[in-house]
Amino acid sequence: MKQIRAIAFEYGLLLCIVDWLCSVQSRYLANCIPTLPLAQSTNGCSSEYRIEADTFGELKVPVDKYYGAQTVRSTMNFKIGGPSERMPIQVIKAFGILKRAAAEVNKDYGLDPRLADAIVQAADEVAAGKLDDHFPLVVWQTGSGTQSNMNVNEVISNRAIEILGGKLGSKDPVHPNDHVNKSQSSNDTFPTAMHIAAAKEVHEVLLPGLQHLHDALHAKAVEFKDIIKIGRTHTQDAVPLSLGQEFGGYVQQVKYSIERVKTAMPRIYELAAGGTAVGTGLNTRIGFAEKVAATVASLTGLPFVTAPNKFEALAAHDALVELSGALNTVAVSMMKIANDIRFLGSGPRSGLGELCLPENEPGSSIMPGKVNPTQCEAMTMVAAQVMGNNVAVTIGGSNGHFELNVFKPMMIKNVLNSARLLGDASVSFTDNCVVGIEANIDRINKLMNESLMLVTALNPHIGYDKAAKIAKTAHKEGGNLKETAIKLGYLTAEEFDAWVKPHEMLGPK
Amino acid sequence: MKQIRAIAFEYGLLLCIVDWLCSVQSRYLANCIPTLPLAQSTNGCSSEYRIEADTFGELKVPVDKYYGAQTVRSTMNFKIGGPSERMPIQVIKAFGILKRAAAEVNKDYGLDPRLADAIVQAADEVAAGKLDDHFPLVVWQTGSGTQSNMNVNEVISNRAIEILGGKLGSKDPVHPNDHVNKSQSSNDTFPTAMHIAAAKEVHEVLLPGLQHLHDALHAKAVEFKDIIKIGRTHTQDAVPLSLGQEFGGYVQQVKYSIERVKTAMPRIYELAAGGTAVGTGLNTRIGFAEKVAATVASLTGLPFVTAPNKFEALAAHDALVELSGALNTVAVSMMKIANDIRFLGSGPRSGLGELCLPENEPGSSIMPGKVNPTQCEAMTMVAAQVMGNNVAVTIGGSNGHFELNVFKPMMIKNVLNSARLLGDASVSFTDNCVVGIEANIDRINKLMNESLMLVTALNPHIGYDKAAKIAKTAHKEGGNLKETAIKLGYLTAEEFDAWVKPHEMLGPK
Amino acid sequence: MKQIRAIAFEYGLLLCIVDWLCSVQSRYLANCIPTLPLAQSTNGCSSEYRIEADTFGELKVPVDKYYGAQTVRSTMNFKIGGPSERMPIQVIKAFGILKRAAAEVNKDYGLDPRLADAIVQAADEVAAGKLDDHFPLVVWQTGSGTQSNMNVNEVISNRAIEILGGKLGSKDPVHPNDHVNKSQSSNDTFPTAMHIAAAKEVHEVLLPGLQHLHDALHAKAVEFKDIIKIGRTHTQDAVPLSLGQEFGGYVQQVKYSIERVKTAMPRIYELAAGGTAVGTGLNTRIGFAEKVAATVASLTGLPFVTAPNKFEALAAHDALVELSGALNTVAVSMMKIANDIRFLGSGPRSGLGELCLPENEPGSSIMPGKVNPTQCEAMTMVAAQVMGNNVAVTIGGSNGHFELNVFKPMMIKNVLNSARLLGDASVSFTDNCVVGIEANIDRINKLMNESLMLVTALNPHIGYDKAAKIAKTAHKEGGNLKETAIKLGYLTAEEFDAWVKPHEMLGPK
Amino acid sequence: MKQIRAIAFEYGLLLCIVDWLCSVQSRYLANCIPTLPLAQSTNGCSSEYRIEADTFGELKVPVDKYYGAQTVRSTMNFKIGGPSERMPIQVIKAFGILKRAAAEVNKDYGLDPRLADAIVQAADEVAAGKLDDHFPLVVWQTGSGTQSNMNVNEVISNRAIEILGGKLGSKDPVHPNDHVNKSQSSNDTFPTAMHIAAAKEVHEVLLPGLQHLHDALHAKAVEFKDIIKIGRTHTQDAVPLSLGQEFGGYVQQVKYSIERVKTAMPRIYELAAGGTAVGTGLNTRIGFAEKVAATVASLTGLPFVTAPNKFEALAAHDALVELSGALNTVAVSMMKIANDIRFLGSGPRSGLGELCLPENEPGSSIMPGKVNPTQCEAMTMVAAQVMGNNVAVTIGGSNGHFELNVFKPMMIKNVLNSARLLGDASVSFTDNCVVGIEANIDRINKLMNESLMLVTALNPHIGYDKAAKIAKTAHKEGGNLKETAIKLGYLTAEEFDAWVKPHEMLGPK
Repeated sequence: MKQIRAIAFEYGLLLCIVDWLCSVQSRYLANCIPTLPLAQSTNGCSSEYRIEADTFGELKVPVDKYYGAQTVRSTMNFKIGGPSERMPIQVIKAFGILKRAAAEVNKDYGLDPRLADAIVQAADEVAAGKLDDHFPLVVWQTGSGTQSNMNVNEVISNRAIEILGGKLGSKDPVHPNDHVNKSQSSNDTFPTAMHIAAAKEVHEVLLPGLQHLHDALHAKAVEFKDIIKIGRTHTQDAVPLSLGQEFGGYVQQVKYSIERVKTAMPRIYELAAGGTAVGTGLNTRIGFAEKVAATVASLTGLPFVTAPNKFEALAAHDALVELSGALNTVAVSMMKIANDIRFLGSGPRSGLGELCLPENEPGSSIMPGKVNPTQCEAMTMVAAQVMGNNVAVTIGGSNGHFELNVFKPMMIKNVLNSARLLGDASVSFTDNCVVGIEANIDRINKLMNESLMLVTALNPHIGYDKAAKIAKTAHKEGGNLKETAIKLGYLTAEEFDAWVKPHEMLGPK
Repeated sequence: MKQIRAIAFEYGLLLCIVDWLCSVQSRYLANCIPTLPLAQSTNGCSSEYRIEADTFGELKVPVDKYYGAQTVRSTMNFKIGGPSERMPIQVIKAFGILKRAAAEVNKDYGLDPRLADAIVQAADEVAAGKLDDHFPLVVWQTGSGTQSNMNVNEVISNRAIEILGGKLGSKDPVHPNDHVNKSQSSNDTFPTAMHIAAAKEVHEVLLPGLQHLHDALHAKAVEFKDIIKIGRTHTQDAVPLSLGQEFGGYVQQVKYSIERVKTAMPRIYELAAGGTAVGTGLNTRIGFAEKVAATVASLTGLPFVTAPNKFEALAAHDALVELSGALNTVAVSMMKIANDIRFLGSGPRSGLGELCLPENEPGSSIMPGKVNPTQCEAMTMVAAQVMGNNVAVTIGGSNGHFELNVFKPMMIKNVLNSARLLGDASVSFTDNCVVGIEANIDRINKLMNESLMLVTALNPHIGYDKAAKIAKTAHKEGGNLKETAIKLGYLTAEEFDAWVKPHEMLGPK
Repeated sequence: MKQIRAIAFEYGLLLCIVDWLCSVQSRYLANCIPTLPLAQSTNGCSSEYRIEADTFGELKVPVDKYYGAQTVRSTMNFKIGGPSERMPIQVIKAFGILKRAAAEVNKDYGLDPRLADAIVQAADEVAAGKLDDHFPLVVWQTGSGTQSNMNVNEVISNRAIEILGGKLGSKDPVHPNDHVNKSQSSNDTFPTAMHIAAAKEVHEVLLPGLQHLHDALHAKAVEFKDIIKIGRTHTQDAVPLSLGQEFGGYVQQVKYSIERVKTAMPRIYELAAGGTAVGTGLNTRIGFAEKVAATVASLTGLPFVTAPNKFEALAAHDALVELSGALNTVAVSMMKIANDIRFLGSGPRSGLGELCLPENEPGSSIMPGKVNPTQCEAMTMVAAQVMGNNVAVTIGGSNGHFELNVFKPMMIKNVLNSARLLGDASVSFTDNCVVGIEANIDRINKLMNESLMLVTALNPHIGYDKAAKIAKTAHKEGGNLKETAIKLGYLTAEEFDAWVKPHEMLGPK
Repeated sequence: MKQIRAIAFEYGLLLCIVDWLCSVQSRYLANCIPTLPLAQSTNGCSSEYRIEADTFGELKVPVDKYYGAQTVRSTMNFKIGGPSERMPIQVIKAFGILKRAAAEVNKDYGLDPRLADAIVQAADEVAAGKLDDHFPLVVWQTGSGTQSNMNVNEVISNRAIEILGGKLGSKDPVHPNDHVNKSQSSNDTFPTAMHIAAAKEVHEVLLPGLQHLHDALHAKAVEFKDIIKIGRTHTQDAVPLSLGQEFGGYVQQVKYSIERVKTAMPRIYELAAGGTAVGTGLNTRIGFAEKVAATVASLTGLPFVTAPNKFEALAAHDALVELSGALNTVAVSMMKIANDIRFLGSGPRSGLGELCLPENEPGSSIMPGKVNPTQCEAMTMVAAQVMGNNVAVTIGGSNGHFELNVFKPMMIKNVLNSARLLGDASVSFTDNCVVGIEANIDRINKLMNESLMLVTALNPHIGYDKAAKIAKTAHKEGGNLKETAIKLGYLTAEEFDAWVKPHEMLGPK
């Protein structure tokens, strides 16, 4: 008992020292080493506060955070869902890109270069994900995303102040509204960040994932091109095709998935920036919108342009609904492919058993040989989620009023979630399942040769009626076609072999 | 008997002459044979019109129709979707019940009994479906269903006028608004008709259909209780259960389906009648609402009551969303059951083949023995439709504003469609599939005995490691458990038979 | 002229007699007037039957119908939903086009020209809608649509037999399978008919409807370009824009709606015909697929091509899911536009009242001036339905198995329903609402001039703080900006008028 | 520059020390202080590993984590979605409760009490959330949740080993499968944890949140009971009601929301535990299922019982679909209420302006008085999300096959998300909006008195025609009713005041 106490004491002391070092570190960081961003201090020491103010009054802000009063106020007013419901970090990073672009264009239009450059540097850090801990707001806030825009403005402003040697929270010399948000409104910047984030997620996660899956399925289609198997329609036995042809159908689905996503992108490349509060562009300069879009295009390497109609771009997010619709169609394809593969791989003894799926995890401790098609399961769950997300996006998109749709954070959360899940799941499914699929040739041949539908090939030689007689007799007696045909005296073994050739049933003549 | 034939002949001749008159000139019709309701004249002769007026002016109304100017105006203003999109006839019949109930109560409160009785008679004809051809309006009209309420008022008014010997279109002595619609508004009558129609469809079609399916599945569960088969989890081979247990799961799903629908009904039994325009009950009498609900309850034999809060009853249709949610859950159950049955019945040679489904139609002209599980397909298509309908109902329900939800016709159309489809499909699926399902016992035994998971039973006798060795060897070599176990020298044939007893693996010990 | 009358009279008499014969005994009909297609006999006399057979045995077929045993069998096995749930007539007509095209190509490949030509003539009648009464099957049948394909084959076969002077039901000289369905399977023809029907509905109903709406909104945007009004974000007062700009946003939405639908079409133009049972094209000839697609393209004037991968074309209907996704996005746009217009037109006294919507129907008999935005209501109900349909299509599309998706009839029903409803509702909304919208300029000016947000314009002149003081004081006291500003002594009336110019707040500078 | 380098050096040194302390702490914790769980070491120091094995081989496991090889393997095979997609912590905590209950019952059935007690202690820590950092797996894993079940088994096993002084990863003396998972399978435990988690979330978050909202709305309904205002139907002016009546409609919706959720709970209280692999209960003891359910009931205070049919409980999750349907209906109610409140509070000058909503955040820096109804926006976004979640749950629920539904993790994620979001949003909406709503009585009265629909009250006194004349004239000339009536000479000012009494229009007579 004494010993335990002693250990506890020592442990307490240890924690104490760590805590103290923490608080030293925080104060140190905040005051002394401006070139090292706060973001590196991720040890969670937050017992100290500074005071910041917005137009509603003063609030305590943690000293180790760059955000300010409006961010804190949002955390107080929107306690909904907890940390897993935070604004997607991709939106924050997209804001980093946008704020940098805006600062560069504002510099062209006369913003003090010293301020502009500091904003650019701070915005770059946001875009690079170096300040992720400074964005605590959840999706379930104001529907315009204003609070997240202000969160970004505050973080960039304070970080830029720090870079320029100023005092955090002073709004001097870099003001979150006047400088970071210059020529902007939440109403046009949030949609812009939504489009940048969606386009990047599509290009960086979704499309590469789909291409990866496409290539693996295509390789399998080639590998399996000479394996002839029974076809199934209505889940019932049907005429044969090659396993390569069957996989070729999946390849086509994924190929079209990629095409579908791409055809939705032109309207995603249109940026609302420059529309400001209601789409008129009040308080911007002629040319600002075009220059910002061009700069974002240059920074991202994606063909962004300024939206031809800013009113539509603020009040409606049909482009996101359209993209979500494309993702929904991709999910439909994925569900089909993953379902087929798990059924074709079902068994090992009492299922269809035509495919052998890779074993990735221990199956049951009882049954050796049990492979659960877990990658198919993850993929089909993702597909269901994407279909649900699409409904949420649809409802949000349809409920905009007048000059502003206020379902923005919810909409982008779901679109990004769908794109990410489909992209990630495609890679996981490919690497942990598709590439390792093997054809169970013995089983495939057995099912093929037992099949009654091969009788079709006899029609031209002995007529439909005799062929039908063979098949019906075989079905009734449980025999195979060849034996039954010979027994009925309709043909010889040689004739059967000459006429019933599944590999000649794979195409038109 | 002879006399009847003679009458029939004469009547046929009469119709014939009437038809002829039609093809030449039809204006005699309305004037000459007033005792034959127009509804019987379904020969489609409509080249002649009478003139009726509403507050917007005069309109031509077909002489063979009871409806009036407001109905005609709606057909002119809402050319959307065509005849298949007509207001569900169940709503019209429900209006018949409601209008009769209101007339009876209005009589209590002083409405001229002669008028009231004529309205009652005409409303009864509407409720009985005798005047179905007089309701041409589509669902896609005003969102309050006002035009369909007026359609009903006009038809009942004109038919009552006819009964009382008046002139069609004269609004005298029975006025569509002042008498038929007395103490009512579209805003409370349409919701009332929605609830009556939904409750009747549930009781007359859906619940009997589900009960029918339940009973058939239950009979099969009993019939199959001693058939032991392989279980499947993740679509893969697993430990055994009885086919009766498997069907018992379906029975439970249908039992709960019935329960779920029933738990949604209490709020459907609440009627909005008496709320009039905004829920306050302006222009009604104290007690009117309760008496109408009681009369409707009496007429239908269903426990309708007046809604405790009329504001909620007009402005929100959460009760229909709730019912639709129950139907959605039923659809989920149906999808699972129908999917299982088609997969268990897949084959005949190259599928799972444990069940033999009844053959209802010619399969392919090529392949004897091909049974397509068409009833499962109809059922799963219905399930998908119900899930889609539920989303439409949800969106409509959520978009009400202020004192009135104006997605009423769309909402009830979808709820009725879901109830009807599920009820009809349940009967069709039961009669044409479930009752005829047979177990393919040879196949079930074969899959069962080949299964490696029976090795589980050896664990207590020879230990997990040896059991695993047996299973892995059998899997690798394609052998069966018994032979492999004996070959490995772990046990004798007698021991294997004594220890591996699938029928002792069906429950806890 | 006289002669025509005489003929008409005689013809009427003839019909009359026929009717009478009907009511007694109708068997004469089929034998006595073979040159009058059965379709014209719509008097519903069906008490007499002929006997037809399929491989399951004999069945009674109504003598006045061209369909045969398989159709009758389907009506017996699938009593689900009733007449309003019939296979969409557009699918039937599309089958007419396809069957004609197949007959022409089969003729090239050797089909007896006499039979081919009769099939072509009969198929044309189907395509032209002359035989609509002969297609009684519901959507809720086999999921491959086989029964509707056979319905078409039977009708065309019997009508062709009739044309060639044969006996209905004899299958001679035109056999429904061997001749009408030659080189085809339900599995490739039904998807082909789905795509033809969808493409035609899109081109004939949806796109013209959307273009009509687009043009009307565009005209309004031009008409309203100089009307300056208050903007609203978060439903709250915001800075001004022109009413033309506001409508311009709607124009852009509809413009993009059209684009979205068009981008989904390339994959709809791909036809499955030639894939036969599982996609391999078994029992077709090389070139058949391409020639059929080319013939369909020629018959419809639409750019149909043969599907590059028939396995995908049978097993998945992602192209319909994609199109449905586009329709879903269109619905989202329509919901926004219709919602805005009804809110902007709300009143007449106690709403926003900026727009005057056309009065189409009597409002309440109590309140003059009450205009219910019924066209907006129809449109938003349609939008909700389309969103629900999209979920049904999605679920159906995701649940295909192996070589065949068996949710085909349900999927095409929903896609056609969505296209038709959106197209029709666009025309109705345009003609009965949009073209008649007028700006309530007095109201618009009043709301505009009372608005506090015009204070923004003073910032550059008197500074933010004084401007804020003016606005806050005006808000608190309920005064207007100009009076308050003058009262506070910050500026003169002349200065206010010179500086506060809403028309200079409509764009960047 | 030198100075910066010096600072950087010092900072590096500091980090170094912290890191070293961290690693000391880790080793210290792992080896020396078994009574202090690893969970307290949340400083993220994870550079050290131990080796653990599963049947697929050895893997590195972080020394500061209790989980083992199967958990690590899952993190390698399922890189989908990242940390925000982790298995909901409520499921983990529910597993803690279940594992404790199972250990207690197993003890009754003979499990070594020393092991059982250690398992109980460790499971309690899981249930209490003390070990949250040890559950890294994402939702997108195997569809049975097996890997999360094993994650729990591994953590409890290792923590129990630690408690008993054993070596982490040794599986001795507490084996994750043989002891922690005794008499259990993932297939019955995961559904059990789903139901426990759902029931707790409903009782701890959702129902209290809804009740809170209900009470606040009810208080407002009482507060506003004497405020008479204009009603609105079709968004247009209608007859009056009291503001209390309007809020009373909302109260009823929330009251029914609570009822709806409660009616879905009985089937959630049914636990699958005891069904093991396929529902038969193989490897459990008679009575185990009932005792586990009773123990869980006792631990949670909720009326859990054992599921009457374990086959249904594993193969279908209709109960979760049903609950999700109830949440969907709640979302529909919330959307209506929040929409109404934001429209009624729109303005301040150019909207409806009948309500004053509390100001929670700075509005625009330009426009004083601009209050964005941000709480309404959060609520409506939540509602849209819940509707989408419901579709995902529906699709997952419908796609189970045979003895096991494998969409479990996705389903429970969505149900918990919906319950949490609705519960949290209700509290946020109540505290930050509803309680602070004030009626703008001047505005309400103004709109009321200007309204033309009050003319209704004159009908009995001067007749409909004269009343209509008054209203139409007033509408045309923009006058008010009283002045117009007097001007037209139909009545005196005194008569008008005596007859037009809005407060007498609020109910039946």
